[in-house]
Amino acid sequence: MGLEVYFDLSAAPCRPVLLLLKKCGIEFTAHAKRLEKGENQTEEFGKVTPLKLVPVIVDNGFRLTESVAISKYLACRYGLADHWYPADLQRRARVDEYLAWQHTSIRPPCSMLLVLEGVLPGLTGQPVQEQKIADIMKGLELCLEHLEAYYLQDDAFLCGDQISIADLFAYSDLMQPMGAGHDVLKDRHKLLAWRQRVETFMGKEVLEEVNRKILNSHSALLDMEPAEKEGLAQYLFSKLKMTG
Amino acid sequence: MGLEVYFDLSAAPCRPVLLLLKKCGIEFTAHAKRLEKGENQTEEFGKVTPLKLVPVIVDNGFRLTESVAISKYLACRYGLADHWYPADLQRRARVDEYLAWQHTSIRPPCSMLLVLEGVLPGLTGQPVQEQKIADIMKGLELCLEHLEAYYLQDDAFLCGDQISIADLFAYSDLMQPMGAGHDVLKDRHKLLAWRQRVETFMGKEVLEEVNRKILNSHSALLDMEPAEKEGLAQYLFSKLKMTG
Repeated sequence: MGLEVYFDLSAAPCRPVLLLLKKCGIEFTAHAKRLEKGENQTEEFGKVTPLKLVPVIVDNGFRLTESVAISKYLACRYGLADHWYPADLQRRARVDEYLAWQHTSIRPPCSMLLVLEGVLPGLTGQPVQEQKIADIMKGLELCLEHLEAYYLQDDAFLCGDQISIADLFAYSDLMQPMGAGHDVLKDRHKLLAWRQRVETFMGKEVLEEVNRKILNSHSALLDMEPAEKEGLAQYLFSKLKMTG
Repeated sequence: MGLEVYFDLSAAPCRPVLLLLKKCGIEFTAHAKRLEKGENQTEEFGKVTPLKLVPVIVDNGFRLTESVAISKYLACRYGLADHWYPADLQRRARVDEYLAWQHTSIRPPCSMLLVLEGVLPGLTGQPVQEQKIADIMKGLELCLEHLEAYYLQDDAFLCGDQISIADLFAYSDLMQPMGAGHDVLKDRHKLLAWRQRVETFMGKEVLEEVNRKILNSHSALLDMEPAEKEGLAQYLFSKLKMTG
């Protein structure tokens, strides 16, 4: 039994979970899935989770989906250092606030930048849609302003003077466009300094392991068959239609 | 000081907070805002919260946004009955899982149905866009299947045999299309029975008070000036463009 973790490190919500597990030295059985190959669409994986999404954990038989719920659960279940998910009510509320906010603010534009600037041009050979990117960046800049002015303020980390799971989520979302070589923080010195603090705390080894796939996302496309590329492109187009 | 709560009961995320406060008899100072009149766009309200969104609470000086974070905070802060947000780790993880899932699944289509079937036709006099509604319903049906098969299962409530804040969020989102007279549960007997259990538990008085504005959303438009209607319509069109 023990702890089983199903993930794909190219999916932003998987990385905070893996960063937490690895940094805190929690033992687990890793089930790396390749979404781009449809490895989450198998009947076998449907038995793990009916929505066929990652991440999922099975902790001694207890199955849990949703990265935010998983991270909070792990922090409590494995008695991780208090700063990850503080027991103090108001400090915990700040982390909960960020984790609720990120779903519909910072996450969608960051993932769309990766798809539109990195993945789709690699799959279809079509040029990047510059106007679409400009529209997304406009929305993302508002999110980054809020991230800086409301969450970070003058603290070292997003929810206070110590790192929490909120920082791991923000870090992972902002890493998503980096998969297309786009650093959305490049002119934001306060947020750049925050990211540096997160990286210093997490350490090179953990970061390299967890970020490798997203930072090499172009090479993940290299060993795909033409039919797989076509299927993935169609899937991404249909998702984009749904979300603007 | 005490607890101050800023809300608009036509906004789905405000209602779980108000349902919880009223059902549990927590005293608070109510600041009802009318989003359709732009009452959240004032400079004064910007001082309460820079994003100018509701709900927001200020609890003896502690300001908190995001309905999910607020509900968890209130459950712990005011020592509410355990079933609302269970202390048991696995039961709490189930509630956290639902509250993370709902942001990008059930909430957007429910609110879009209200806007497209109720608010926009009332503002512009234009007919309902039937094809758009059919597309949204297709996505929503998948969410409802997951709600029934994964969350509700054979339990009385979404996260077990007792009501939790997860039920209040699902109930409030599903009430959103009711503002346009559209009951999306009408053919789903298991979910209808669940909704009935939620309503029986909550009681008529609380429900009438909290649901009144959404169930009369057409009349909220009646005393708007033409320029206000035009402004609201433009705002909603721009939001729809952003989210598909």
